[in-house]
Amino acid sequence: MKSFLESPLSGIIPPLVTPLLGNDTLDVDSLENLIEHLIAGGVHGLFILGTTGEEQSLSYRLRKEMIKETNRINAGRLPVLVCITDTSLVESVNLAKVAADYGSSAVVSAAPYYFATGQPELAEFYEDLLKELPLPLFLYNMPSHVKVNFAPSTIRRIAENEKVIGFKDSSANIPYFQTVMHTMKHRPDFSMLMGPEEVTGECVLLGANGGINGGANMFPQLYVAMYNAAKEKNVDEVWRLQQIIMQISTTIYSIGQFGSSYLKGLKCACSLLGIIKDDFVAAPFHKFREPERNKIKEALDRLPIVNGKIQLH
Amino acid sequence: MKSFLESPLSGIIPPLVTPLLGNDTLDVDSLENLIEHLIAGGVHGLFILGTTGEEQSLSYRLRKEMIKETNRINAGRLPVLVCITDTSLVESVNLAKVAADYGSSAVVSAAPYYFATGQPELAEFYEDLLKELPLPLFLYNMPSHVKVNFAPSTIRRIAENEKVIGFKDSSANIPYFQTVMHTMKHRPDFSMLMGPEEVTGECVLLGANGGINGGANMFPQLYVAMYNAAKEKNVDEVWRLQQIIMQISTTIYSIGQFGSSYLKGLKCACSLLGIIKDDFVAAPFHKFREPERNKIKEALDRLPIVNGKIQLH
Amino acid sequence: MKSFLESPLSGIIPPLVTPLLGNDTLDVDSLENLIEHLIAGGVHGLFILGTTGEEQSLSYRLRKEMIKETNRINAGRLPVLVCITDTSLVESVNLAKVAADYGSSAVVSAAPYYFATGQPELAEFYEDLLKELPLPLFLYNMPSHVKVNFAPSTIRRIAENEKVIGFKDSSANIPYFQTVMHTMKHRPDFSMLMGPEEVTGECVLLGANGGINGGANMFPQLYVAMYNAAKEKNVDEVWRLQQIIMQISTTIYSIGQFGSSYLKGLKCACSLLGIIKDDFVAAPFHKFREPERNKIKEALDRLPIVNGKIQLH
Amino acid sequence: MKSFLESPLSGIIPPLVTPLLGNDTLDVDSLENLIEHLIAGGVHGLFILGTTGEEQSLSYRLRKEMIKETNRINAGRLPVLVCITDTSLVESVNLAKVAADYGSSAVVSAAPYYFATGQPELAEFYEDLLKELPLPLFLYNMPSHVKVNFAPSTIRRIAENEKVIGFKDSSANIPYFQTVMHTMKHRPDFSMLMGPEEVTGECVLLGANGGINGGANMFPQLYVAMYNAAKEKNVDEVWRLQQIIMQISTTIYSIGQFGSSYLKGLKCACSLLGIIKDDFVAAPFHKFREPERNKIKEALDRLPIVNGKIQLH
Repeated sequence: MKSFLESPLSGIIPPLVTPLLGNDTLDVDSLENLIEHLIAGGVHGLFILGTTGEEQSLSYRLRKEMIKETNRINAGRLPVLVCITDTSLVESVNLAKVAADYGSSAVVSAAPYYFATGQPELAEFYEDLLKELPLPLFLYNMPSHVKVNFAPSTIRRIAENEKVIGFKDSSANIPYFQTVMHTMKHRPDFSMLMGPEEVTGECVLLGANGGINGGANMFPQLYVAMYNAAKEKNVDEVWRLQQIIMQISTTIYSIGQFGSSYLKGLKCACSLLGIIKDDFVAAPFHKFREPERNKIKEALDRLPIVNGKIQLH
Repeated sequence: MKSFLESPLSGIIPPLVTPLLGNDTLDVDSLENLIEHLIAGGVHGLFILGTTGEEQSLSYRLRKEMIKETNRINAGRLPVLVCITDTSLVESVNLAKVAADYGSSAVVSAAPYYFATGQPELAEFYEDLLKELPLPLFLYNMPSHVKVNFAPSTIRRIAENEKVIGFKDSSANIPYFQTVMHTMKHRPDFSMLMGPEEVTGECVLLGANGGINGGANMFPQLYVAMYNAAKEKNVDEVWRLQQIIMQISTTIYSIGQFGSSYLKGLKCACSLLGIIKDDFVAAPFHKFREPERNKIKEALDRLPIVNGKIQLH
Repeated sequence: MKSFLESPLSGIIPPLVTPLLGNDTLDVDSLENLIEHLIAGGVHGLFILGTTGEEQSLSYRLRKEMIKETNRINAGRLPVLVCITDTSLVESVNLAKVAADYGSSAVVSAAPYYFATGQPELAEFYEDLLKELPLPLFLYNMPSHVKVNFAPSTIRRIAENEKVIGFKDSSANIPYFQTVMHTMKHRPDFSMLMGPEEVTGECVLLGANGGINGGANMFPQLYVAMYNAAKEKNVDEVWRLQQIIMQISTTIYSIGQFGSSYLKGLKCACSLLGIIKDDFVAAPFHKFREPERNKIKEALDRLPIVNGKIQLH
Repeated sequence: MKSFLESPLSGIIPPLVTPLLGNDTLDVDSLENLIEHLIAGGVHGLFILGTTGEEQSLSYRLRKEMIKETNRINAGRLPVLVCITDTSLVESVNLAKVAADYGSSAVVSAAPYYFATGQPELAEFYEDLLKELPLPLFLYNMPSHVKVNFAPSTIRRIAENEKVIGFKDSSANIPYFQTVMHTMKHRPDFSMLMGPEEVTGECVLLGANGGINGGANMFPQLYVAMYNAAKEKNVDEVWRLQQIIMQISTTIYSIGQFGSSYLKGLKCACSLLGIIKDDFVAAPFHKFREPERNKIKEALDRLPIVNGKIQLH
C-alpha cells in the first residue's frame, strides 16, 4: 500500500469528472468504472469535486455521496484529495469533516468566490479555516473563477501553518507559478501542482511536482508518461507527448464558443470512450447536443487510439 | 393588510443585514429589532439574504433560520423577498421551497457565480430553474460579484415567463439600466429596482419603481422620503435628500481599502445606532477593529441625527 | 458673442465625429456642414478629437488640420474644446499648443492609456502636464478605453490647480459620478459633464452641468431640448425626450457585435441624414457594409424625423 | 556579418531600455554604451521601442532619433527590430518607413490599444497595415496593455501573408502560447518568441525560438547562457540559471506597488551597473526616489556579480 501522503505529493492526480444521470443523481457505476480506469492507468492520486468535478453545481447531498463512494471504491489504494471550496467557512468545514470521516487524505480549497477578498482578508480567512480542518490542506489558485489571485506572499504567510502542504495553480500564468515556486523553495515538502495540461510537462522539467490534468480522465497513461519523461529530464519525449496533448487541447476542449467548452468536451469524450455512461453536465450547463458530439467523435477519431488507449509509441 | 404583491412592486425594499453573533449564530433578537425599525420607518418590503445579507457566507442551516424568523416576525405585514442565488440549481430550489413554506412573497436570483455562463446558457438556466420554483422571481444583476451581466435581450427572453416579475440592478451602470427599462416597457407590471442608493432618486424620477438600498437599514425614513419625493417629481427635494445620502456613502461606506468597506461600515453603523447588538461579519471577513469603528462613529456624529433618526427637515 | 468660457461650462457640447474620406484625408466640406448644423441646433460648445472623433486613429497631421479647420469654421461663435489625450506628455503638450494657437477655449485629457498608472502616478502626471499647458483643462474619465479610473480623491488633488475647470465622465458608473460631484462641491465653477446620453437627463436633474452626447451630431435640437427640460426640472418632458433617446441608443448604436457599433452606427446615420458625405471610419475599423447600413436606414425610418430633424412635439 | 534575418529568428533579443536625460532628450552616449554591452554579451538581435523601451511615452521625434541612432551604432552587426505599435495606422506606417530607411531588419506591432477591436476587425487591421509595410512583421501579444488578445486563429489568418515572420507573446499565459505554437507548426520559419524571462527557459525547451527578455539589458550573458542550455536540452543547467533569473525577478522588478515596478527597477539597476547614465523614466512615470533606489542597490549586492557580470559558474 502506498504511503499517505508522500511529501511532497507528486505525479498525475486527475481531477475526476463527476458522472451524473441528472442534476442530483450520481452515477455510481460509472464512478467505479472511472476510478478503476485511472488506477489501471497509473495515476498517483484522485482529486474529486474540483472545477472539472463541477463541485459548485452539485447539491451538498451529492457532494457527500461523491466523497463516500470515491473512498469506498478507492479502498485506500491512492491518496484522495477532496475540494472543499465554498463561499461559507461553515460549509467548507462541514465538507472537510465528511472527507475525513470517509478516509480522504487531504482537502483542497480555492478562495471564497462571491465576495472578493483583499490579500490580508484572504490570509485571515485561511488562518480561521485551518483551525477547524481535520485534514492537511492544498491551496488552489483559480482566479478566473474566484476573482482573487493568491499573492505569493499570501501563500507564504498561510503556509507558515504546516498543515498547508501544497499549491495547485490553474491561473495559466506561469511566470506567476515560477514566482510562487521560488517563494516556497524553503519548504521542500511543499507540493507545487499545475492545472493546465498544456504546460505541465515544462513545469515539471523546471521543478514542479506534478499535474492535476483533466485529460487524464480520458487517457491516464499519456499524462503519466509525460510526467515520467519530465522527471527523467527526457526533453525529446516530453516534446513528443506534448504534441498529442496539444492535439487534444485544441480539438476536444475547443468546440463551442463559451468557457464551458472544456467541461462539456471532456465529459462528452469520456462517454464516447465508454469510461462514463452519460455525459450529463449539471446546471447551469447542458451537455453537448448532436452536432457538437459529432465533432468530438471526429476529434477522437484523429487521435492515435487503440483499444481506448492513446498509443504512446 | 398590504396586498401581496402589488404589481409592479414599488418603493424602498431594504436588503437586510443579517445580525450575527458568530459565523453560524443568528441573533434573533436583533433581527426582531431591525425588522420593527424598518416597518416603523415605512419601508415597502423586506429583502433578505442578498449581498448585504451575506447569503453566500452563511451556512444553509442559518439561511433557513433567517427565512423562518423573518417571516415569523414580519407576520404578513410586508412582502418578504428571499435571495436564493446559488451555484447549484438544486440548492436554489431547496431554498425557494423553504421560502415558500414560511410564507415569503417572492424569490430573487443572481446568476450562478462559479462557472461563468454565456448568454444562451444563462437563459436556459433560468428556464430550467423556473420550472421548479414555487414563487415569483426577481432577476438580480450583480456582475462585480457573479462575473456575468444579464444582456437586456436575455432578460426579455427569461421574462417571457410571467413568473418573472422584476429586476434588481446592482451593476452601477445606469445607461445599461435605462436600456433594460426600455427593453421591458411592454411589461408595465415588471418591477425595475435599483441597488445603489446614490442613484435611486434619479432612477425613480426617470421611471424606476424603487430601490433596494442598504442605507435603509440605518435610516429607513430618509430613503422612503427620497423615494416619495421622486415619485412626486419633486426634484428639489430629491436633490436635498441626495446630499445626505452622498454624505453617508462617502463616509460610512468608505473606510478601509477593500471591497468589504460597504458591508463592514454598514453593519458597524447599525450596531452603533443600536439597531443590532453586534456587527459581527461572517467569514471571509471580520468586523472593523477599533480604529475603523471610531471613524464610523465620527461619520455618524457629523450626520443630522436626532434620537437615532436623520432629521429630514 | 458668447463669453468664453462661462463658469462652469454648461449645456450640450457634442463630441464631433471627424468627417473623413480616407485614413488620412479630412473632409473639410462635411466638417463645415456639421458645424453649421450643430450651431443651428443650439448646442453650447464643440468638442473635437474625443473618442467619438477617433482622435487616436488619426495621424497628428490630421489632428492639427481638424483643430485648425474647426476653429476657422466656428469663428469664435462657440467654445471649442480639444481632446489632447495621448500616451506621451510631449505630444499632448504639442497638441495643446496647436489648440491654443488656433483659438480653442480649453483642452480635454483622459489618462495615458498604454501604461496603466497608479493613482499617485496619475496625479503627478497631471501636475507635470499642467505646468506646460497653455489652456484650461477638463479631465476625462474613460476607464473602458484607458484602463484607469480617476479616484475621486485624485480628481480633487489634480483640481487644486485652478486651470482644471471640469470633468467629463464616460464610465457609465453613475454612483461614481455622484461621488465625484459630491467630492467637488466646494468648486461651484467646476463643470461636471456626462458622456452617455442615456443618463444625461437624470444627471442634469440631479446637478450635473451638461452632456457630451454623441447623438447630438445627428439631432442637436433633441439633446438641447432634453438639457433645457432638465435645467427647468420638468421631469415629464425629460422622460418624454428620454424615450426618443433610448430608441436611438437601442437601435442606431446597437448594430453589429463589437464595441465599435456605436461609432460605426453614428457615422453611418450622419451620412444617411446628409450631415456628412461619407461614413468612412479610420483604421482599425471599417465603416458598415450594406446589410448593416440598411439596418441603420430602417432605424432612422422608425424615428419621428421631419426634414432631417426629430419632431419634438 | 550575420545573415539577415535567419529564419526563424532565434535567441535572445533584448528589448532595449531607452536611455533618457528628460522626457524628450535621448542619451545617445548611454545608448552606445548599452548596445556595445549587449553585443559583447552575445545577444542575437536588438529590439527597440517596445514596452520596455517606453515607445508610447516618447515623442515621435525621439522615436525616430532612437531608430536612427540604434542603426548607426549597430552598424549592421545584429538584426534590429523596431516596434511600431500605434493606435493610428498612418503613424505606424510612418514609423515603419523610418525603420526601413535607417536599415532595420523588421518591425513589431501590438494591436491598436485605444479602441478594442473584435477578432475579425483585428485581422482586417493587419491586412490593411501589411499592404503598406516596407519590412517583415512580428506580431506582438500584450493584452494587459492593449486590452486585446490575438486569438490563435487570428494569428494564423494574419500570417497567411508571408511578410509575417514571427510572434512575441507577453501575455504570461503559457497554455495560450503553446496553443499558438501548435497552431503555427505548419510554418517552420515562423519565430515564436517569449516575453517574460521567468519562463523563457522552459518555453525554449519545448520548442520556442527565443526570448525578448528585459533582464538581458543588465546581464546579457546570463540570458544567452540560459537560451543555449535550453537549446542543448540541458535541463539541469536551465534550472540552475533559472534560479538566478527568479532572484532578479522577485527583487529588482518587485519594488513599489504599481505596474511600473518592472520598468523603474530595470532602469534603476542599469544605471547602478553603469550601463546607462541616468535612469530617467518618461512621463507618466518618474524614476525611483532614494529609498527604492537603495533597495535595488541591495538586490544587486545579493546577486553573484563580478565586474558587472553575473558569475555563471
